[in-house]
Amino acid sequence: MTQASSTDSRGISFGDRLFQAVQQKDSAVVVGLDPDLTLIPPELFRGVDESSSRRMAAVVVKRFLQPIIGAVADVAVAVKPQLAYFERLGPYGMEVYEELVRYAQAHDLLVITDAKRNDVPQTAWQYSIAYLGLNAADQHVTELTTAIDREGPKTDALTVNGYLGRDGIQPFVDNLGSGQGLFVLVKTSNPSSGDLQDLQVAGELPGRTVAHHVASWIEEWNAARMGELGYGPVGAVVGATYPEELAILRSLMPKTPFLIPGFGAQGGTAADVRRGFDARGLGAVVNASRSILYAYRKSADLSFDQAARRAAITMRDALRKA
Amino acid sequence: MTQASSTDSRGISFGDRLFQAVQQKDSAVVVGLDPDLTLIPPELFRGVDESSSRRMAAVVVKRFLQPIIGAVADVAVAVKPQLAYFERLGPYGMEVYEELVRYAQAHDLLVITDAKRNDVPQTAWQYSIAYLGLNAADQHVTELTTAIDREGPKTDALTVNGYLGRDGIQPFVDNLGSGQGLFVLVKTSNPSSGDLQDLQVAGELPGRTVAHHVASWIEEWNAARMGELGYGPVGAVVGATYPEELAILRSLMPKTPFLIPGFGAQGGTAADVRRGFDARGLGAVVNASRSILYAYRKSADLSFDQAARRAAITMRDALRKA
Repeated sequence: MTQASSTDSRGISFGDRLFQAVQQKDSAVVVGLDPDLTLIPPELFRGVDESSSRRMAAVVVKRFLQPIIGAVADVAVAVKPQLAYFERLGPYGMEVYEELVRYAQAHDLLVITDAKRNDVPQTAWQYSIAYLGLNAADQHVTELTTAIDREGPKTDALTVNGYLGRDGIQPFVDNLGSGQGLFVLVKTSNPSSGDLQDLQVAGELPGRTVAHHVASWIEEWNAARMGELGYGPVGAVVGATYPEELAILRSLMPKTPFLIPGFGAQGGTAADVRRGFDARGLGAVVNASRSILYAYRKSADLSFDQAARRAAITMRDALRKA
Repeated sequence: MTQASSTDSRGISFGDRLFQAVQQKDSAVVVGLDPDLTLIPPELFRGVDESSSRRMAAVVVKRFLQPIIGAVADVAVAVKPQLAYFERLGPYGMEVYEELVRYAQAHDLLVITDAKRNDVPQTAWQYSIAYLGLNAADQHVTELTTAIDREGPKTDALTVNGYLGRDGIQPFVDNLGSGQGLFVLVKTSNPSSGDLQDLQVAGELPGRTVAHHVASWIEEWNAARMGELGYGPVGAVVGATYPEELAILRSLMPKTPFLIPGFGAQGGTAADVRRGFDARGLGAVVNASRSILYAYRKSADLSFDQAARRAAITMRDALRKA
């Protein structure tokens, strides 16, 4: 790769960092952290006594996810906390989110915060600083804002939504620190993702969709900052549930790391996601949430964390073969 | 209006509730709560002593916004907390957000939580419950989830992003309680909003854009649940900075309440937003954030809260005339 160095002034590219981890662990598994209180093992609710029911629930979520993070640390390349589940517990949920980011990072896991944030540029800056920390040099700071930015954990990658256009994502791109990345929604895994994403754009080649437009922005950002392994810092979310579109998007976005959700409970298989990878087996990571977290419900012989580990290993091996 | 009652099984329509308040106060002003630590009056930082710098900042934000909310309570119809600014302060920011929701609601203001949330259906449910509370009857609940949902405040309306298509918004629609509403992003106020929103769709009438598609979904939801004043519960975000498009969208979405941002600091004027209103002067509310919150910086004669009040009155009167 000659177009750009992986260690420019802004440090290592997220693409390099992610896929070096994939090579080291020989795994493309991302474990989604979607803590559903109605599915967590009942014994974890015992003996929790707090004045606030949300604080109580937050304790239970931590009891559930921390052992799972530990159990999958050498099998998965990253965990993906889904903020909706934490936000449902209010401030207490955000406390647990922060603790789990630090815990996962201390256990050799990357953290992809699934927030799907988006806003006008000035507000997008605030979101980017909230989750990635303050890395860009051109923002106005005071003693207090500097202290604030040192206090919170910094995630490794953040999902963002491009409905607002390029200037709604640019602040996130400009604020990436060394090794940090984004995943922009391109083609999502839900049944009606085509309502907007598959709309064909007038005056362009037949078959060129709204999602392909978003893809072209991402490739531009990556061309300016590509790493040694051929991938830049700005990833794309492309669902496992649309394998044909996955192949098209792979060819349209050769420099872009893919985060592929929809594996397992949502119906995507190892064969479906194959076309998200390059010839070296790099280029993509695959997320499963419920099929790993709640594997204990189908494995009476194992503790919940060991059942999660076994499900993650099964998924890793299925992806290796495919 | 004969198509639907405003008090169906799900109670009053948000459109009725919002525009009844507009009529009572003779004001379409929404005050955006975007607490920028670098712009808050320096004297509010005095004597704050906390172990955490984020907790300290949260105290300052509360000292700043609570008096402003009190000062604009009879001038504005709603406040719009922008969650990015609160999330930047981590769990402490979310605590202040919750306190301010309760404070504003106790002062006869509606609260529009500007979160721009979006996700696949199962996760969209979690977001909707996190901010609107649990109102739909068909969700699985336990004693603990019921207690959790009683604990947090319930906002009056939430902004959401439709990039994922209809099924990503449907859970928010299905979970609306009596008098609660949504504002779906249609045409945003930022410079590059056209990158995606203005793309013309192939095979349709010339000029029909992606934003117009989203508009058509919204009108369908509202047709099924319209209030006495002719507006349903699902609003649209349409920026003041594109007045031509505002007029087109008003005609495409006759049943839809508009939230018009971009007034004031972003450049939109009272003349620009006129075409968002119907002949009765209803149909829209207009947000300004920085031009109201930080008015004290240009008004040496007034305290920061009274400067905000005066700026809100000036805006209200300008909108009345237009």
